[in-house]
Amino acid sequence: MQSTDIYYYTGTFANGVLIITKDNEKFLFVRRGLDRAQEETNVSVSYMNGFSDIKKFIQQQGFKVDTIGLEFDVLPANFYLKFKEIFDRSQIVDVSDLIRWQRRIKETNEIENIAQAAKNLDCLMSDARIYLEENKREIDISAKLEYFARLRGHQGRNRMRMFNGEIFMGHVISGSSAVGFSGYMKPLTGKGMYPTYPEGASTNRIEKNKPIIVDFVFNYNGYLADQTRTFVIGDVSSELKKGYQFCLDLINWFEDYAKAGTNAYEIYAKSLEKAKSAGYENIFMGIGKDRVSFLGHGVGLELDEYPFIAKGMDYSLEENMVFAFEPKLIFKEGAVGLENTYLVKKDSVESLTRFPKQLVQL
Amino acid sequence: MQSTDIYYYTGTFANGVLIITKDNEKFLFVRRGLDRAQEETNVSVSYMNGFSDIKKFIQQQGFKVDTIGLEFDVLPANFYLKFKEIFDRSQIVDVSDLIRWQRRIKETNEIENIAQAAKNLDCLMSDARIYLEENKREIDISAKLEYFARLRGHQGRNRMRMFNGEIFMGHVISGSSAVGFSGYMKPLTGKGMYPTYPEGASTNRIEKNKPIIVDFVFNYNGYLADQTRTFVIGDVSSELKKGYQFCLDLINWFEDYAKAGTNAYEIYAKSLEKAKSAGYENIFMGIGKDRVSFLGHGVGLELDEYPFIAKGMDYSLEENMVFAFEPKLIFKEGAVGLENTYLVKKDSVESLTRFPKQLVQL
Repeated sequence: MQSTDIYYYTGTFANGVLIITKDNEKFLFVRRGLDRAQEETNVSVSYMNGFSDIKKFIQQQGFKVDTIGLEFDVLPANFYLKFKEIFDRSQIVDVSDLIRWQRRIKETNEIENIAQAAKNLDCLMSDARIYLEENKREIDISAKLEYFARLRGHQGRNRMRMFNGEIFMGHVISGSSAVGFSGYMKPLTGKGMYPTYPEGASTNRIEKNKPIIVDFVFNYNGYLADQTRTFVIGDVSSELKKGYQFCLDLINWFEDYAKAGTNAYEIYAKSLEKAKSAGYENIFMGIGKDRVSFLGHGVGLELDEYPFIAKGMDYSLEENMVFAFEPKLIFKEGAVGLENTYLVKKDSVESLTRFPKQLVQL
Repeated sequence: MQSTDIYYYTGTFANGVLIITKDNEKFLFVRRGLDRAQEETNVSVSYMNGFSDIKKFIQQQGFKVDTIGLEFDVLPANFYLKFKEIFDRSQIVDVSDLIRWQRRIKETNEIENIAQAAKNLDCLMSDARIYLEENKREIDISAKLEYFARLRGHQGRNRMRMFNGEIFMGHVISGSSAVGFSGYMKPLTGKGMYPTYPEGASTNRIEKNKPIIVDFVFNYNGYLADQTRTFVIGDVSSELKKGYQFCLDLINWFEDYAKAGTNAYEIYAKSLEKAKSAGYENIFMGIGKDRVSFLGHGVGLELDEYPFIAKGMDYSLEENMVFAFEPKLIFKEGAVGLENTYLVKKDSVESLTRFPKQLVQL
């Protein structure tokens, strides 16, 4: 019932109910926008008013409905309860993880969209190199990057699946704006402009010799790519330079190490081990209790897809998985780190985001 | 548990669980960002790992938990089921409508935020007057308006509460881009740039003598205002001019008619009657089956708050309710209409958005 899931299976971003039978027959019911839906999908589409229309249709078709699978991870409780009431003789089960797991492997056209998003992110980092300027507010830079991203085809709306998960377009976080975290499950959140959206650019001004994190999500035709680079006007302290080198070494190690068959958790565990050995354990991917327990996340229609390079993710990378990998360290003076979006190949991972990986000194 | 609801009751946009006892004691548990939450709220804040921590706390406090109220309208089914499992001796009920109903009346600081958002929308419409140009793509204009909105303090992320409800920042819809609708429950959706985000500006080019709808939501410190104006480079046909006059007359009638005590449904019913008498029934607030059944919606932290000026909304307007009222007609050549955000007063409604109401001819 989630529009994103409906799009994945039909090609139209509809608002309604998609029935998929166990023989893979599909029937789409929409609350609104029948004509557009019919233009965009080959699946049969009809109007619906309420869930009882779905029951009527199923009865007319003579379908036997022993089990109904719904997306328990995103479907509001009252939708679930309503379905349970209407289909009182069926078993209602959670298929959200099945849907998400199926989406872990990207089709050719999905990879093309993500690659296009990634190319646009490379341009965005070039824009950052042009427009970052001492004494400008973080929001001044962020707004400019967003503006050019929109002109280059960013669809605007980005999507996350997890409850309370949000992302506008990206983060510009300079100096000590990086210290302190809101509730979002991201290694860096930034301060944001207001308590009501506690992430991303703030009105803090960019200072010389402090690191500036530019972390953006580009959305091309619904598909996301994610890239982070660290910039500085002047130079960072030797402590931060060493930290940046650690992140760079880690991402280079990762690029050598990962390929189809590599265990996702092992990448995480080995990286954490490296951070520990380097003395960065407490400032790696957050600070203290506010560290997140992942280093990478699949990208596709949503920003939080499989595979996760994280604690507990005991599965192998597979060909045509696409995910972001993002080692970051948070120092008192500011954060350093980098992030690329990778496509898993048989014998390697290929970075789809290709802005030079060095610390960008302006 | 929804961050927006938690913000409403605590002043911090946290990710976790807020307990409110029947004596109105509050305890906030966050998954991340304890320091920031503690800075922003007076409520006691602690870390939580999972829902079992909440149960432990309740047991330690010796609270008797006969009934637990959750937000069934936004809480994912699996959160609900997990809560039910952990609190297996409590009754779990839906309080989402109570929360939403409570939020229908705005506090002074909320009204100030909305009024600031509304002022920014007036500036945005002035920007539209400057930048709208023949042959530009809708997205060129939309991106520019978004850019200046961000510089003026738009927080970026806008929020809707309904499942599958989304809004990026607003719509620029020119000429026949207005004909055709996606699944979003809005009088106009526009074409958007991709099937994956079927609303708002498209790559269609702005033509002379065709109406251009500029409909934006400004978010100031989490609070929304909503305004629509119709622009044209040159002039629209006499048919559309008549249509615009109808919308203008309707909004002027509404401004005379509405005040604290006015029934929300009656405003809707009387407006629909006027549209019918004028022969616009089938193109008012959509076309045919794709018409929406509301003319107004409350605004606040979310774009879909009480009061709704809609079918079935049999309640009175009350002082300090704030809502958008938006009569729109969709012709084959394009859409016309306007929208303001109103504050309900004892004897009147006051428009917080104040860009001149006439059709804007460029």
